[in-house]
Amino acid sequence: MPKMSVKAGLPPGSLVYIGEQKLEEVRIRLMSYSETDWSEKELQLSKASLAGLDKSSVHWIRVEGIHDADTIGQLGRSLGIHPLVLEDILNTGQRPKIENYLDYVYMAVKTVVYDCQAGKFELEQESFILGENYVISFSEDSTAIYDPVLERIKAKAGLIRTTDADYLLYCLLDVIVDNYFVALEELGEEIDAIQDELVTNPVPATMQFVHELKTQILYLHRSIWPMREIAGLLTRRETLLVREGTELYIRDLYDHIIQVMDITETLRDILTGMLDMYLSSVSNRMNEVMKVLTIIATVFIPLTFIVGVYGMNIAMPERQWGWWYPVLWLIMLAIAGAMVVFFKRKKWW
Amino acid sequence: MPKMSVKAGLPPGSLVYIGEQKLEEVRIRLMSYSETDWSEKELQLSKASLAGLDKSSVHWIRVEGIHDADTIGQLGRSLGIHPLVLEDILNTGQRPKIENYLDYVYMAVKTVVYDCQAGKFELEQESFILGENYVISFSEDSTAIYDPVLERIKAKAGLIRTTDADYLLYCLLDVIVDNYFVALEELGEEIDAIQDELVTNPVPATMQFVHELKTQILYLHRSIWPMREIAGLLTRRETLLVREGTELYIRDLYDHIIQVMDITETLRDILTGMLDMYLSSVSNRMNEVMKVLTIIATVFIPLTFIVGVYGMNIAMPERQWGWWYPVLWLIMLAIAGAMVVFFKRKKWW
Amino acid sequence: MPKMSVKAGLPPGSLVYIGEQKLEEVRIRLMSYSETDWSEKELQLSKASLAGLDKSSVHWIRVEGIHDADTIGQLGRSLGIHPLVLEDILNTGQRPKIENYLDYVYMAVKTVVYDCQAGKFELEQESFILGENYVISFSEDSTAIYDPVLERIKAKAGLIRTTDADYLLYCLLDVIVDNYFVALEELGEEIDAIQDELVTNPVPATMQFVHELKTQILYLHRSIWPMREIAGLLTRRETLLVREGTELYIRDLYDHIIQVMDITETLRDILTGMLDMYLSSVSNRMNEVMKVLTIIATVFIPLTFIVGVYGMNIAMPERQWGWWYPVLWLIMLAIAGAMVVFFKRKKWW
Amino acid sequence: MPKMSVKAGLPPGSLVYIGEQKLEEVRIRLMSYSETDWSEKELQLSKASLAGLDKSSVHWIRVEGIHDADTIGQLGRSLGIHPLVLEDILNTGQRPKIENYLDYVYMAVKTVVYDCQAGKFELEQESFILGENYVISFSEDSTAIYDPVLERIKAKAGLIRTTDADYLLYCLLDVIVDNYFVALEELGEEIDAIQDELVTNPVPATMQFVHELKTQILYLHRSIWPMREIAGLLTRRETLLVREGTELYIRDLYDHIIQVMDITETLRDILTGMLDMYLSSVSNRMNEVMKVLTIIATVFIPLTFIVGVYGMNIAMPERQWGWWYPVLWLIMLAIAGAMVVFFKRKKWW
Amino acid sequence: MPKMSVKAGLPPGSLVYIGEQKLEEVRIRLMSYSETDWSEKELQLSKASLAGLDKSSVHWIRVEGIHDADTIGQLGRSLGIHPLVLEDILNTGQRPKIENYLDYVYMAVKTVVYDCQAGKFELEQESFILGENYVISFSEDSTAIYDPVLERIKAKAGLIRTTDADYLLYCLLDVIVDNYFVALEELGEEIDAIQDELVTNPVPATMQFVHELKTQILYLHRSIWPMREIAGLLTRRETLLVREGTELYIRDLYDHIIQVMDITETLRDILTGMLDMYLSSVSNRMNEVMKVLTIIATVFIPLTFIVGVYGMNIAMPERQWGWWYPVLWLIMLAIAGAMVVFFKRKKWW
Repeated sequence: MPKMSVKAGLPPGSLVYIGEQKLEEVRIRLMSYSETDWSEKELQLSKASLAGLDKSSVHWIRVEGIHDADTIGQLGRSLGIHPLVLEDILNTGQRPKIENYLDYVYMAVKTVVYDCQAGKFELEQESFILGENYVISFSEDSTAIYDPVLERIKAKAGLIRTTDADYLLYCLLDVIVDNYFVALEELGEEIDAIQDELVTNPVPATMQFVHELKTQILYLHRSIWPMREIAGLLTRRETLLVREGTELYIRDLYDHIIQVMDITETLRDILTGMLDMYLSSVSNRMNEVMKVLTIIATVFIPLTFIVGVYGMNIAMPERQWGWWYPVLWLIMLAIAGAMVVFFKRKKWW
Repeated sequence: MPKMSVKAGLPPGSLVYIGEQKLEEVRIRLMSYSETDWSEKELQLSKASLAGLDKSSVHWIRVEGIHDADTIGQLGRSLGIHPLVLEDILNTGQRPKIENYLDYVYMAVKTVVYDCQAGKFELEQESFILGENYVISFSEDSTAIYDPVLERIKAKAGLIRTTDADYLLYCLLDVIVDNYFVALEELGEEIDAIQDELVTNPVPATMQFVHELKTQILYLHRSIWPMREIAGLLTRRETLLVREGTELYIRDLYDHIIQVMDITETLRDILTGMLDMYLSSVSNRMNEVMKVLTIIATVFIPLTFIVGVYGMNIAMPERQWGWWYPVLWLIMLAIAGAMVVFFKRKKWW
Repeated sequence: MPKMSVKAGLPPGSLVYIGEQKLEEVRIRLMSYSETDWSEKELQLSKASLAGLDKSSVHWIRVEGIHDADTIGQLGRSLGIHPLVLEDILNTGQRPKIENYLDYVYMAVKTVVYDCQAGKFELEQESFILGENYVISFSEDSTAIYDPVLERIKAKAGLIRTTDADYLLYCLLDVIVDNYFVALEELGEEIDAIQDELVTNPVPATMQFVHELKTQILYLHRSIWPMREIAGLLTRRETLLVREGTELYIRDLYDHIIQVMDITETLRDILTGMLDMYLSSVSNRMNEVMKVLTIIATVFIPLTFIVGVYGMNIAMPERQWGWWYPVLWLIMLAIAGAMVVFFKRKKWW
Repeated sequence: MPKMSVKAGLPPGSLVYIGEQKLEEVRIRLMSYSETDWSEKELQLSKASLAGLDKSSVHWIRVEGIHDADTIGQLGRSLGIHPLVLEDILNTGQRPKIENYLDYVYMAVKTVVYDCQAGKFELEQESFILGENYVISFSEDSTAIYDPVLERIKAKAGLIRTTDADYLLYCLLDVIVDNYFVALEELGEEIDAIQDELVTNPVPATMQFVHELKTQILYLHRSIWPMREIAGLLTRRETLLVREGTELYIRDLYDHIIQVMDITETLRDILTGMLDMYLSSVSNRMNEVMKVLTIIATVFIPLTFIVGVYGMNIAMPERQWGWWYPVLWLIMLAIAGAMVVFFKRKKWW
Repeated sequence: MPKMSVKAGLPPGSLVYIGEQKLEEVRIRLMSYSETDWSEKELQLSKASLAGLDKSSVHWIRVEGIHDADTIGQLGRSLGIHPLVLEDILNTGQRPKIENYLDYVYMAVKTVVYDCQAGKFELEQESFILGENYVISFSEDSTAIYDPVLERIKAKAGLIRTTDADYLLYCLLDVIVDNYFVALEELGEEIDAIQDELVTNPVPATMQFVHELKTQILYLHRSIWPMREIAGLLTRRETLLVREGTELYIRDLYDHIIQVMDITETLRDILTGMLDMYLSSVSNRMNEVMKVLTIIATVFIPLTFIVGVYGMNIAMPERQWGWWYPVLWLIMLAIAGAMVVFFKRKKWW
């Protein structure tokens, strides 16, 4: 949970980065493309301006690294972004949302990034600003997940070169949602892997792992849930920045978001079922242990009583009889056998 | 869960089959009928076209097998289907939905198919496209469940030959929903069968089976739930393709869908109750075992103490007395008897 | 659960009876009344027709027994009832609903009937068709529950003879809802009866009985729940067949339905609380048993050890002393007493 | 639960008292007041009439005791109350509701009355009829809770003497809602009282008491919940009988009702938490007992085995040695000590 | 829970303080500021009046301490506040709400205050009245949390000096919401601290602490939840007192409130998971203890039986053999070893 409290008492619009630094330096790149051409270059902070952008092309300003509040603040002012929006962009604890401004639409979403070292997924914040002919993206880290889109632009694949900035935004949101499928399938495989372990060898560590998976799915669900609203709002075209032709694609995106939510719910149900199975499995094993042990004890208790009787230092008539010892063994075996049969018949064993 | 991640990064409208291949070859058949006549034939992929269809007849293009993305893509382009729709048709992980296009309505539903080998139900995806005078159906596998409709067409039974394509679509949806009743009744019988077993012999395997049944019912519920919306949308006639006379039948279909949902909820409640019964039954049996065994142990513990006393190598006055041994037996029987009576009175036995 | 699957694949409007046969023959009676007069007679199937009914009287066609699909089909056609409505009338698994047709309103409700043999309640389906000046009722069994209404008609009690068919329908629905109160009070008494048993002698059979009661209440709730919608729709007068004066009475009926739902919810809460009490009571009794038994065992374990010590065949100085035996008894009594005191003080006993 | 079934089959509007008789006789009093004057008198049943009431005063007809259906029926007819309303007034199982009639508004609410003998709260039904310049109140029992309002009228305190009948109704509802606060605070104190007991001495009786408190809160919640709707409807001024100036006060009443609901929910949460604490506390105590006892048993088991070894009548070399007996004691003490240390280190003790 | 019952029976608008006294004296201060100037002074109760306030400045009347009903009443009358509003201001059990009056908007919110002594958070009530060019704030205690706003006014930081009273109100609400983040992060740290303790050493005290944290989060949630409605109502600008430019800021505030709710829900989920972990951890530890102890007992039971056999005073052939004693030890060690191996292989140990 990022520390939101550092901003307590500051005036609204104060730019404070809330989150971990993931890159050494902020890097700003400008990708411009039209049907006929494309170009990509580093953008100098001092030269960043919307006024200088060619009207006939689509421009994608990619900001990687948002830990430097000063740089982002300066960039935001150059690009005419409202201070409250900049404040949200710098707050990685921001929940996904969409907001309509006069000239642009601002939206924050969460992207799923796989951390190879820790072997678990991390959620990172992506902020987008969609304008007339430009998209500005703000990422916590480097944006390898956008590579397929970059390649499509360069290779002129699909419709991307012949459409407007709204279609570019759709493509970026689409790869983000696609990454949720990847994450959920990884989780699904981990779940499959421990399912067998759960029944054969139910140890507390397994349960703790199931709990952790459940928490992870919970976070994924919390991240994807508000995106439904974002896509819904874009579909209903409450902003003129989304063109009619793109609407169909965003409806498709909406559909994918619903599917992600369906899968998270299914996985959550499966994990809940696994916790039930674990508890029942543990108590079953414990019962098995206790039952067998108690039965062994119970079989020997009457026998121990009998040998105790003949250990008494009292005159007993039967002691005189020479065959008493082997007969006693037979009696004791008979008692033990009878008890075993009794337990077996009652299906207690 | 089908692997949706293979499409991550691909441009929208990319045709990739997501699911298992169930047939060797894609088969496309065209059934045309009017009040007076009917014909059925294989359709060549190269000759498939909506333009060539007779306006006075109803046409049903049946596609069996959707694993071949190229073939389906070519067919879709010939029939003028939007690439996003084709993408959904090829994605068997698609959740049931309905979408209104300019000339046609697209809908995806799940059909329940009984797998004899595995002894369980499988959900398969059916996609329909309803146009002015045609229905196109896309199935994962061969479509034996539509046989009753085919026979009605051939036999001119009911209203089917005198009505339009929307009534044909209704008939197809109706047999799909009817199959849910069959599936739920089979599940209901399985539930009845294990109900007795649960009380008499509660083993973990039974519980695991109950869990599996619960999961299956969950999947059935997830499949039928969005169909309510599909039927609802068709009833409200948001599309001109559904004629006024058909509306009544679709309202009836809607009603059947609600009934399916009611039954799934009832079965789920019963299964939840069974899990409770199982847990209570297991703990009850365990308690019985432990109680009887502990009582046996407890009866013998004082007796073992007594015989221990007379095993001591210490001078005791009572040892002198000749009748001490039989008297001791009487004393021990009396103690054992008293404890049994005490346990019985307290209803612990 | 009635077998809905027998209709799978049949064309819509196919008349198949789904349910148990409860009467030997279908019986159709016609009760006609106006402010001045009333008559009751058996109705010949061949002569049934709405055209022949006197416009100035209210007519109530009572159909008892719906197991004979042919008879009901013929009657339905004579009376001009839509095949889909007839199909629903014959399906006893139909959930309560109301449907508006051009000339009439169709509704299906569930009535509670007490089965003396089985000692439990059964739900039966009643279907009503309300027309301009007639009500047609379809019952699975003989309709003794309507006797109070018949007597009111004959005795000219209340408003019934001076009002229209809609008031007759209201009266029939009213007695059906009143029967739910009777059923719930019977259930309430059964619940009171086992409440004491639950605490004093918690056996699994009691719990199973509680579970069954809970299931029965669930079914009652599922039957009454959609009737709220029926009464609501009649109140909002979406049909012209309900006159303004009757509206007030139907609002009263609606109120009674809400009360039935309130009572079912209260009973359900009580039963859920009883299950909790049962589980806690069982575990409490078990704990009591185990505790006392374990304490007995524990008291004797040190004593048995002591007598074991003096059973050793080893030279011990204390054996020489003549008073050792009685002193040992005192020591052992002291140990046993100390442990009992210790347990008592810790409130373990 | 009042027996609603006694009315099954009776025509609508049949006057039957459902509930317990709480007063010997029905008492009807008329309180009239205007800005300048007030009077209070017993009202003869035969002279009760709305026509005779002075238009310039506000009249409050207080009916105490509604067990006599004949008297209430006669009074109702004199005052022009609809039979269905009278039926509801006589039914103490009626849930709180509000109904708009042509000349008056009818509402039923539940009042909380503390029963000193039983030491618990009872819910009684109050019915109100609000007319142009009169309020009629029907109570099951004597109406001491209205005394503050009576005193305010007599003392000309607050606004009551200068306002209309709607303000009088508001005052009556206000004292009823205030009584819920009293009841909830009493319950809150009882809950505080048993909270300590729960942890130190968790006996089943405590839990049963917690269950009863939970049920009582449930009933309070069920009674207050529909009052929200009543106040809401009065605020939205769907009736002309509530004047504009009173609206503000009813909004305040609405607010109080929400607060009552908040408190009931908080208490319910606390009680649910207490049940969890109880169960955890019981199992914890049980575990403590079992653990200590089992440890005692386990420490003595190896010792008993050792003394058994030297009780064998077999030649053993070590027996010859004179110091064996004290050495054996040392060995046994060492074993017992080692086990105790082992248990302590593992934190089992 | 404040004692709301003291007002039972009092007329509406009666001024009674409900809550604890936190300050010795009521203190009223007036802060006035415009773009060019600011002043702060103590306000005499007798001179308090809205008429005397300069129209060109924004005025903030800060009331600290509301325990003196007379003072607050007098102040309220001077400032023209409705008696019902004053009643709510004095009732610290009031739930957060917003109410629209003719000239002003009244709202009650809860602020989180950290109590160093008790080491826990306390909720205090803040009431605000927003007028044309003034804000009146009523606090239970001294208002150190508003210091950042005061400093911003004095330092002319941000927009506060150039905006109207609505922006001042926004700033006050903003610092209150920011304090929730602080509180939740403190709670989050406490949760982290006990997480480890829960698994390694699960004692009842830990669980009780978790329960308390859960209750505290519940209270925080109940306090923040209605603030959503307050901000929502201010955003939708149902009052003319909120200017268009401020709307954007209140939307930001709304967003922060949603974030607070998200965090409370996340913490609640984590605590619920911790309770599950605790219970599972306790039962796991208990099972471990019982299992090891039972196994020890079980290993010695057959051995004790064997030594009992040779303790019998009966002629046995094997006793004659000189090597029987060491052989017997070997046999017993073999039995004990076999059982240990058996238990290990079954993974019971």
